[in-house]
Amino acid sequence: MRENAKDPQRHAQRMAAKQKIMHERIAGAQKEQGLLLVLTGPGKGKSSSGFGMLARALGHGMKVGVVQFIKGTRETGEEAFFRRQPGVEYHVMGEGFTWDTQDRERDTRAAEAAWQVARGMLTDASFDLVLLDELNIALRYDYLDLDQVLDDLQARPPMQHAVVTGRYAPEPLIELADTVTEMKVIKHAFKDQGIKAQRGIEL
Amino acid sequence: MRENAKDPQRHAQRMAAKQKIMHERIAGAQKEQGLLLVLTGPGKGKSSSGFGMLARALGHGMKVGVVQFIKGTRETGEEAFFRRQPGVEYHVMGEGFTWDTQDRERDTRAAEAAWQVARGMLTDASFDLVLLDELNIALRYDYLDLDQVLDDLQARPPMQHAVVTGRYAPEPLIELADTVTEMKVIKHAFKDQGIKAQRGIEL
Repeated sequence: MRENAKDPQRHAQRMAAKQKIMHERIAGAQKEQGLLLVLTGPGKGKSSSGFGMLARALGHGMKVGVVQFIKGTRETGEEAFFRRQPGVEYHVMGEGFTWDTQDRERDTRAAEAAWQVARGMLTDASFDLVLLDELNIALRYDYLDLDQVLDDLQARPPMQHAVVTGRYAPEPLIELADTVTEMKVIKHAFKDQGIKAQRGIEL
Repeated sequence: MRENAKDPQRHAQRMAAKQKIMHERIAGAQKEQGLLLVLTGPGKGKSSSGFGMLARALGHGMKVGVVQFIKGTRETGEEAFFRRQPGVEYHVMGEGFTWDTQDRERDTRAAEAAWQVARGMLTDASFDLVLLDELNIALRYDYLDLDQVLDDLQARPPMQHAVVTGRYAPEPLIELADTVTEMKVIKHAFKDQGIKAQRGIEL
């Protein structure tokens, strides 16, 4: 986690707005509201936890949106599964995109295009939950403007949940979030020993 | 996490068997195999991560089993969602069961009955993944025999994944597991302030 709010004034404004919302929320405790959740850290389970929340929301008949900010070379199990569920809008950034492209300009364009899709969801109150999978990685590489991302997250509809996953969550995002979990590796035996990722678990 | 292997000899046998399997696995690296995953710690995201892995496995056309060792008073989103998916066998321990019953004998019977269901899955190679949600809590309260649970987990079909969730994973289970993640609370603002659990996120 790192400090990288680029604009101290916008940061202060966000924090003031958050404090106001918090006070209102505490005053009206027991009210339903949208939460901003961040799942970060090096341990296994960040994205899968986000997808579990997606399933949970769908179980309540909610409408959900997913933007995946990292596209591997293979189609993942979660993509295959959730694309066929009713009530899911699923977007994967840049077909065939990986972080191995070594083409910073192309990566930035792909990340920005993905953020426009995310923004569309974050301004549409018909989405009950928006999962921004591996967004933290796009922020880590400065492919997106952090202040813009934070402003858009904060401006989302009050009942909408947003879930952000990925290592290296930036500190200002953690400050803005309602709930933050850090996944710690206790052991990851096979990864350390070069055993391949297992379908259904890692992919 | 605590040390509570009750029978040192069985523990030693298990560890020797595990070492043998590990050596075989390393020798044959890149092979597919079933993994034992443990998701523990106080942070949010343990069960949802298990349910995300379930979704991922279903996306690969796998057959999955779920045993939930804690039954709240309300039907959860995950239960509603996964029960209607093809390829899922879903069992919730003891209808209306909660840990609030204060009836130790009844709780133990319910946990043992749930373990028999789990054992049926863990001895059936047609299940590609078995999720034992909140099993750690049943172990924590000594409602189940830890050695029996560990033996059954270790004896499962070699290609079957098993995922165990819940706080307070016992140390011998962590030793037996292939991958262990501890969820750490960075913040859980609303819970601390008594704001109710939100549908789609907590339930």
